[in-house]
Amino acid sequence: MALDRLIEGILECKNPTVAGLDPKLDYIPAFLKEKAFAQYGETLEGAAAAILEFNKGLIDALCGIVPAIKPQCAYYELYGWQGVKTLHETIVYAKEKGMFVITDGKRNDIGTTMQAYAQAHLGSVAVGSQTPEPFGGDALTVNPYLGSDGVTPLLDVCKAQDKGIFILVKTSNPSSGELQDQVFESGETLYSTVGGLCEKWGEALPGKYGYSGVGAVVGATYPEQLRELRRSLPHTFFLVPGYGAQGGGAKDVAPAFDQNGLGAVINASRSIMTAWKKNGVPEQDYAKEAAKEAVRMRDEIVGEIGGLSRP
Amino acid sequence: MALDRLIEGILECKNPTVAGLDPKLDYIPAFLKEKAFAQYGETLEGAAAAILEFNKGLIDALCGIVPAIKPQCAYYELYGWQGVKTLHETIVYAKEKGMFVITDGKRNDIGTTMQAYAQAHLGSVAVGSQTPEPFGGDALTVNPYLGSDGVTPLLDVCKAQDKGIFILVKTSNPSSGELQDQVFESGETLYSTVGGLCEKWGEALPGKYGYSGVGAVVGATYPEQLRELRRSLPHTFFLVPGYGAQGGGAKDVAPAFDQNGLGAVINASRSIMTAWKKNGVPEQDYAKEAAKEAVRMRDEIVGEIGGLSRP
Repeated sequence: MALDRLIEGILECKNPTVAGLDPKLDYIPAFLKEKAFAQYGETLEGAAAAILEFNKGLIDALCGIVPAIKPQCAYYELYGWQGVKTLHETIVYAKEKGMFVITDGKRNDIGTTMQAYAQAHLGSVAVGSQTPEPFGGDALTVNPYLGSDGVTPLLDVCKAQDKGIFILVKTSNPSSGELQDQVFESGETLYSTVGGLCEKWGEALPGKYGYSGVGAVVGATYPEQLRELRRSLPHTFFLVPGYGAQGGGAKDVAPAFDQNGLGAVINASRSIMTAWKKNGVPEQDYAKEAAKEAVRMRDEIVGEIGGLSRP
Repeated sequence: MALDRLIEGILECKNPTVAGLDPKLDYIPAFLKEKAFAQYGETLEGAAAAILEFNKGLIDALCGIVPAIKPQCAYYELYGWQGVKTLHETIVYAKEKGMFVITDGKRNDIGTTMQAYAQAHLGSVAVGSQTPEPFGGDALTVNPYLGSDGVTPLLDVCKAQDKGIFILVKTSNPSSGELQDQVFESGETLYSTVGGLCEKWGEALPGKYGYSGVGAVVGATYPEQLRELRRSLPHTFFLVPGYGAQGGGAKDVAPAFDQNGLGAVINASRSIMTAWKKNGVPEQDYAKEAAKEAVRMRDEIVGEIGGLSRP
């Protein structure tokens, strides 16, 4: 149930991290782009084909080391429906390799419209007598601005399909405080109010490791808030962006974890995808270099938190 | 600049409304589904083909009467990348017919990721030496929870491409107040704080009718807040959902308008798309019935606000 499958993957890999797949064309080795453009031209289809090959190489190299991927929808929509097709094919490929897939769409809407997003990304849809899975992710990131009407339609789909969600609570960006840190008359900030709602919404999706199916996104760039939220939200699993290229280090993310080294999954995107560029290795070795960076990140974080153990 | 093209469409049609295209398969006449399923099977491709035919029929009937369409991304993603392809084809078709397209995606992210959404939905993207338009909408709805980092990347694209955005301020759903109505220590609610930011962000995109390129989503179901926000946000154009099936009437939306009958565009989705069902007409007449409902809605709203005039 809930996010248990993610937690089991983390325990098996002994690695509480997730590889963000945000494949800008700039990050992709020239040989992959040349091959795709030779076949499909300098088109959206060509870009989408290059991204798919890039992703498959990364997934082949990372599976077994990293338990999960987090494709960022924006970088697929950037290449039109052809890019969105690559998003779907990436999800299917990662699941075949046993990885957990967090679709980073920050989707939000109300009622039957939110239900449509839930079915699209986590469930299935009726088409005549058939019920195909449109995208097939395991978890979806969700923006809470619309309140419970934007979240409860997801809970039924998560329950039926063994899926989870991550609600934006305190994001990693410099201006996240502009609204999220403001204090309501209740004495609570906006982000802590949303955190409290995550605990409440999560009651519908209890998990066997103590964490519900309603997780929270909390940025590595705000370690104090991370510590405070870990204490106040004992049943809420954290997805932590902001490690690596955004400036967060292992010491910054350590407060996200509980005494078993569970409770959070740390995302890195750019530092893994572009390790081949940064380290100046031949571009054919991009996936091998990504795996080396993922191992380095794993060892750094696991070293800092002192290991993981089954509760 | 900005939302001027939308305002000009409203003045030409003498109609301050937008037709929401949220094409659930249930809304689509059987003859269109049977034809698509015969060709493509009961598949996502079949569903997407039925939706495209349905949308084209509606656009043919509505263009010249209604100045704009608002496709809701959730109902296209619901049918996978095949549905997202239909979203693109719907946008292209509506623009060929001279309609303004508001892509209702409620997208949100930060920095270069938000820039990717901006380019995807409102701009173009570099692929080798080419710069295709991934989706080609004229405006995009945006969720403000991440603060300025989630909005400023859109402003440059809007300026360069003559596009606009609509920020969620006060949404139409019953639980919108759960977060949006809470009062900060400053004495302002969350929604009025976001409203104030819309005025600020909009300074970068001034328009010739007094309204900037940064609009606001304000629900018809909260007429008091609509009235208050119309007064406090003089440069912010409103996109108003919640008319029709959600319960808002012409009297409820009237406070959204200024003395010229401008300042807002009222959305109706279900009442237009399903008029053929509600009125029991033969299903082949679905588009004609949608146009009749759109005319009825136009006359009701324009009657209530006493006409439109060029400022």
